[in-house]
Amino acid sequence: MYFEYSDKVKDLQKRVTEFLEENVYPNEKTYQDQLNEGESRWIVPSIMEELKEKAKKAGLWNLFLPESEYGAGLTNLEYAPLAEIMGRSPIGSEVFNCSAPDTGNMEVLVRYGTEEQKEKWLMPLLNGEIRSAFLMTEPDVASSDATNIQLSIVRDGDEYVINGRKWWSSGAMDPRCKIAIVMGKTNPDAPRHQQQSQILVPLDTEGITIKRYLPVFGYDDAPHGHAEVELKDVRVPVSNVILGEGRGFEIAQGRLGPGRIHHCMRTIGVAERALELMIDRIQSRTTFGKLLADQGVIREWIADSRMEIEQARLLTLKAAYMMDTVGNKVAKKEIAMIKVIAPNMALKVVDRAIQAFGAAGVSGDTPLAKMYAGLRTLRLADGPDEVHRNAIAKQELKENPVLQK
Amino acid sequence: MYFEYSDKVKDLQKRVTEFLEENVYPNEKTYQDQLNEGESRWIVPSIMEELKEKAKKAGLWNLFLPESEYGAGLTNLEYAPLAEIMGRSPIGSEVFNCSAPDTGNMEVLVRYGTEEQKEKWLMPLLNGEIRSAFLMTEPDVASSDATNIQLSIVRDGDEYVINGRKWWSSGAMDPRCKIAIVMGKTNPDAPRHQQQSQILVPLDTEGITIKRYLPVFGYDDAPHGHAEVELKDVRVPVSNVILGEGRGFEIAQGRLGPGRIHHCMRTIGVAERALELMIDRIQSRTTFGKLLADQGVIREWIADSRMEIEQARLLTLKAAYMMDTVGNKVAKKEIAMIKVIAPNMALKVVDRAIQAFGAAGVSGDTPLAKMYAGLRTLRLADGPDEVHRNAIAKQELKENPVLQK
Amino acid sequence: MYFEYSDKVKDLQKRVTEFLEENVYPNEKTYQDQLNEGESRWIVPSIMEELKEKAKKAGLWNLFLPESEYGAGLTNLEYAPLAEIMGRSPIGSEVFNCSAPDTGNMEVLVRYGTEEQKEKWLMPLLNGEIRSAFLMTEPDVASSDATNIQLSIVRDGDEYVINGRKWWSSGAMDPRCKIAIVMGKTNPDAPRHQQQSQILVPLDTEGITIKRYLPVFGYDDAPHGHAEVELKDVRVPVSNVILGEGRGFEIAQGRLGPGRIHHCMRTIGVAERALELMIDRIQSRTTFGKLLADQGVIREWIADSRMEIEQARLLTLKAAYMMDTVGNKVAKKEIAMIKVIAPNMALKVVDRAIQAFGAAGVSGDTPLAKMYAGLRTLRLADGPDEVHRNAIAKQELKENPVLQK
Amino acid sequence: MYFEYSDKVKDLQKRVTEFLEENVYPNEKTYQDQLNEGESRWIVPSIMEELKEKAKKAGLWNLFLPESEYGAGLTNLEYAPLAEIMGRSPIGSEVFNCSAPDTGNMEVLVRYGTEEQKEKWLMPLLNGEIRSAFLMTEPDVASSDATNIQLSIVRDGDEYVINGRKWWSSGAMDPRCKIAIVMGKTNPDAPRHQQQSQILVPLDTEGITIKRYLPVFGYDDAPHGHAEVELKDVRVPVSNVILGEGRGFEIAQGRLGPGRIHHCMRTIGVAERALELMIDRIQSRTTFGKLLADQGVIREWIADSRMEIEQARLLTLKAAYMMDTVGNKVAKKEIAMIKVIAPNMALKVVDRAIQAFGAAGVSGDTPLAKMYAGLRTLRLADGPDEVHRNAIAKQELKENPVLQK
Repeated sequence: MYFEYSDKVKDLQKRVTEFLEENVYPNEKTYQDQLNEGESRWIVPSIMEELKEKAKKAGLWNLFLPESEYGAGLTNLEYAPLAEIMGRSPIGSEVFNCSAPDTGNMEVLVRYGTEEQKEKWLMPLLNGEIRSAFLMTEPDVASSDATNIQLSIVRDGDEYVINGRKWWSSGAMDPRCKIAIVMGKTNPDAPRHQQQSQILVPLDTEGITIKRYLPVFGYDDAPHGHAEVELKDVRVPVSNVILGEGRGFEIAQGRLGPGRIHHCMRTIGVAERALELMIDRIQSRTTFGKLLADQGVIREWIADSRMEIEQARLLTLKAAYMMDTVGNKVAKKEIAMIKVIAPNMALKVVDRAIQAFGAAGVSGDTPLAKMYAGLRTLRLADGPDEVHRNAIAKQELKENPVLQK
Repeated sequence: MYFEYSDKVKDLQKRVTEFLEENVYPNEKTYQDQLNEGESRWIVPSIMEELKEKAKKAGLWNLFLPESEYGAGLTNLEYAPLAEIMGRSPIGSEVFNCSAPDTGNMEVLVRYGTEEQKEKWLMPLLNGEIRSAFLMTEPDVASSDATNIQLSIVRDGDEYVINGRKWWSSGAMDPRCKIAIVMGKTNPDAPRHQQQSQILVPLDTEGITIKRYLPVFGYDDAPHGHAEVELKDVRVPVSNVILGEGRGFEIAQGRLGPGRIHHCMRTIGVAERALELMIDRIQSRTTFGKLLADQGVIREWIADSRMEIEQARLLTLKAAYMMDTVGNKVAKKEIAMIKVIAPNMALKVVDRAIQAFGAAGVSGDTPLAKMYAGLRTLRLADGPDEVHRNAIAKQELKENPVLQK
Repeated sequence: MYFEYSDKVKDLQKRVTEFLEENVYPNEKTYQDQLNEGESRWIVPSIMEELKEKAKKAGLWNLFLPESEYGAGLTNLEYAPLAEIMGRSPIGSEVFNCSAPDTGNMEVLVRYGTEEQKEKWLMPLLNGEIRSAFLMTEPDVASSDATNIQLSIVRDGDEYVINGRKWWSSGAMDPRCKIAIVMGKTNPDAPRHQQQSQILVPLDTEGITIKRYLPVFGYDDAPHGHAEVELKDVRVPVSNVILGEGRGFEIAQGRLGPGRIHHCMRTIGVAERALELMIDRIQSRTTFGKLLADQGVIREWIADSRMEIEQARLLTLKAAYMMDTVGNKVAKKEIAMIKVIAPNMALKVVDRAIQAFGAAGVSGDTPLAKMYAGLRTLRLADGPDEVHRNAIAKQELKENPVLQK
Repeated sequence: MYFEYSDKVKDLQKRVTEFLEENVYPNEKTYQDQLNEGESRWIVPSIMEELKEKAKKAGLWNLFLPESEYGAGLTNLEYAPLAEIMGRSPIGSEVFNCSAPDTGNMEVLVRYGTEEQKEKWLMPLLNGEIRSAFLMTEPDVASSDATNIQLSIVRDGDEYVINGRKWWSSGAMDPRCKIAIVMGKTNPDAPRHQQQSQILVPLDTEGITIKRYLPVFGYDDAPHGHAEVELKDVRVPVSNVILGEGRGFEIAQGRLGPGRIHHCMRTIGVAERALELMIDRIQSRTTFGKLLADQGVIREWIADSRMEIEQARLLTLKAAYMMDTVGNKVAKKEIAMIKVIAPNMALKVVDRAIQAFGAAGVSGDTPLAKMYAGLRTLRLADGPDEVHRNAIAKQELKENPVLQK
């Protein structure tokens, strides 16, 4: 056991932190202002492209991507504390080209893409020139069970014909979003885990209609957005399939581990920022003649928040460590645990911060309510808490067969 | 003890319920559509005025207002179960001219208004012709302690000159909102509870600027809205003061009891509707080959929700009963208790419903996320939970002086 | 709705309260001392018999037993607030001949007993001359499902021959305990709810062996005790069967309603006493230069306790009201709810009180730890929380068939 | 970051585990039986002395004591996982001569004792020949604030005269307990943190009376026990003072860090064992036709328990790591955190296990209720949760001075 970051990580933490303090935090408002200035909010705030250039120049680019020549060569354990820092700002991850779902899509292409697919889609993604979407969830089925996915992908000569409806396609509203990885069913008659395929579909292909965006607690999450997408007789060449027909479920499984670690670490960053805001607030607000910071109940909120954050962070780091050392499959219990723990923890911390801020906490004058809304989706995305708790228990029972009787 | 509603109440419950089923629920979407159709959302959806006419004709109008010839002659206990039913729909209370802050403002005018004030402002409010705002909360002070209020009201001849800034002035965005009751300081040198006055200020008076609306989470709550209002050298005649100079705190106290009961009962209605939606959902959604309704964890959510709602309702009704029989002052502990209990209870119920709905729960496809946002403000409005818990404990200690030592 | 006790009840509350203050509280220690003085703790402390005589003389005797000429003629709703007051003292209920399992056994005999059975067993129980046990739970099966009961009752001529093993036979350790109602299987081939019978078995019958007592946490609960009982070829006349062969399940069901109400009301009394002790403590204990009563965190404990108690009491009273008016069967959801709510609520209150008392709270110097232990069993007795939560949900789903789809 | 135990630790874990499986678990019942056989329970069960001999021979002895030639030379981080394993059995720690309060007392003597003190008291303690007590807590003051300690230590020539009353003197009931470290006030006029001294007092000194033992939830914790001790004109030579007059507070502080780590790790062992028992139970118990392990609610208990244990363990290990690397003082926030986290976590796990076991869980047929009682004291011992939460918050505020305003 060794509870310190390596020198390499400490150096990167310092650099990412300084970058945020100098460039990102001061521009969070600029970013929102630019979004609000246009007629539509589905635009690209120019400040983002400027910050991306700066980050690229500073060598803080594509820090994810373990075990790959394309990225910065960091392990999950090394990347995790950096994802946490980026997660402190709602625009932090994108600045470093480390935001979902691009990170997951790039990983899929790195691992399973053909040279042609890499050339065409991975390179511009790595360069931050385009963005991407992952079309997985469907409105009519419980998508936490990936075998439920209904979208149809039928081969017709040299093409696949795609028909179906997806929603919560995050990022698909963004004007820079050019490519989607679409999960669907190529063979309903195959064994249960071989019915699905993943296929690359350029978003300007005929037959694709963005029906609407889905708000989250009233927020549009522009310019990213969560889209409902209709695919009607959409045709793409057979070479667009990833890894091969019937291997969609396998790709989906491989995608989950890193994706969850990233989300959890960003989530811990969100919690840290909320705690920081709360600590700042209570040291400058007086009620009934007493500083909030001097009230016992509020102090308990601080102590509980700190205890919950520290524990969640350590377990997330351990899960990252296990992914690096024994692999995502063996680490699945730990990954499931942090998937449940991190958002629930952060929701508690943010809720306390809202309470400490009073009315300002639920409004747009603090980032707290939006943090809360975003975190709340994480108890559902990639499967609700209940599915993961059940998986943890199943694993635990498997590891402890009954002793007597 | 007698745990049944009177026949009079049962009849009204039936009529209000039927009115909602026939007229309100089916038009919730119409109302939203009308809001979204115009260029601005700060308009009056015509469906609302139509529904108000219908309710008036059905004799379901101004059901609040206990002990007054202006209302329907119901006690708090009789009105409470009706407020619950109205609260089931986000547009329910307004249809019956029973929505905040008009109800509180009308009560103030009924109790403390001069004949002239009643003629000019109470009558059109009772008729549902105009709406009103209550300008209490200020951005820079902890307004849960009413003696903190800083807005200045200075007499100048036959007029008062008002200067200050208010926020969370709910309803002030509505084009029908014509009059505000403004709380402010007339005499900084008076004893602590006699410094404040309440005064009627028409919203079209020179010097009043609506600076912006404050979103709740990402919702604008249009056309009602929560405004930040600047008052700069605003002049009104001295006859606009209510009850007399220095009596603002006294009026504020009198307003709190009924206001809280109303909010709590509506909140219980919200919880009931969320539970109903959840029960409907789980009986029609299958995951991993099993109906949600057949999963033990989900059943616990149903059972816990039912237990929490039932208990909260009974205590709210008891508080209403006490207000009617021993008065708001003696009932203050019970009022403080339900002020804490009702929103916290409803937040739990709604959060479970969100979880049962998955992604649809956080979006606009169910009313749940908006319910959650609205309920979350109730843990802060009229004083945060912590202030009320403290008041309950103080009262409890007072009732139980130390026995030994 | 009417939230006040009747004059009759108020008078009885006053009398029972005064009786406790004058006679019971001051003798709680005497009772313990008498238990500790002998060689064994399985004796009858003489103070109990003296107090019983006093209570009988004061006309405060057999206050339970609704709808019966044998009792005081109180409804469940009338008796409930008295059971609460008695529950405040660990020896309170027995003083008034209102303690379990005698109350339940007497009710069974009143309702279903033959004249002979009443003469022989009900009369001495009503007079407080003997005590009784209810042999239901078995070590090897989940007894919350009564159809699991395995003890065998086989007819042999004019006798039944009983074989089996019971545990948690509360009260069976008491030297005054003379009679047991035993639940067992008379016909394994009958339909599921007609296999069981209940039969009267004098405890001095040959073949009955009290194997041991079961401690609760570290308490023996002497002289009452919870026994493990072996029944080996125990023979009783056929006339000892209650109501008739195969009707044991039916009797068990009928027994549950009042039994639960009684337990819940006593439980609320326990919570009230713990809160009272805590309030007393915090007003006389100083840490770090500050009275505990002036610390915000402790005040929250007081407020939360008061809120939880008030809500639980109201729902329990409502359940009692429903039992009186619509019957135990229709009231089953409410009965299940308070069965879950009351002990969980009281455990929280007592746990806070323990924390406020520090080390004294877990020791024998306050009654708190013993209260906790006793309450903890109530989350298991008569079926664990989970069984009742499931029943509540089932009932709720039944009342709300799916609306659409 | 490195999340694996060293080879040295893994080897010791294996050896301690095997020792428990072969020698300790099978003798837990023997130990209890020997206690129950005698007339008194304040005896030494011979099995314990046998097991101690075996452990000594196996080289598993005095594994605590970091940075000392007297112990096994393990760091806190290395010892922690062993303490966890020992903590799984209620008799585990003593077998390896690693049980409180001897460990703390030995550490004090190692660090601060004179050669004479070491010779006389440390050596027999290290050899497991005698046991010891730490007389700190007093009945009349809040002892979590050590400056409150009132026991008087007055110099009289070559002796100190001690007068006062202590309670919760754990281990003082044990016939092997020969020596106590007593905390008291030598100089009421000195600065606040220099008033106290710690002094060695043989338990057979005239003037010492063990007044009684204090039960914990009905348990006597024999033969260890928690004693109330009267000290009346007790005289010891001045050479018995430890470190010097006025340095008692300083010693008390130094003692806390390791003591808490040990307790926390044992507590995690308790939680692990309870979880193991629960997993075993639910895989062999059926209710309503379904294995408990197949019920969703029970699975949530397993998942939540696993998540809570894992997080608590990691933070405890991190605290141990910090104590080894930056010292107890810098690690004080982490130490305070685990002091709060570990017992609260374990109480939740054990409570769930009790619920899964039903009535057996609260009785003596499982170790669960006794575990619960013991854990409950840990929320109070060495200061209640509230004191530590407050300390964590204070530290957090100190580390985050207000940023703006």
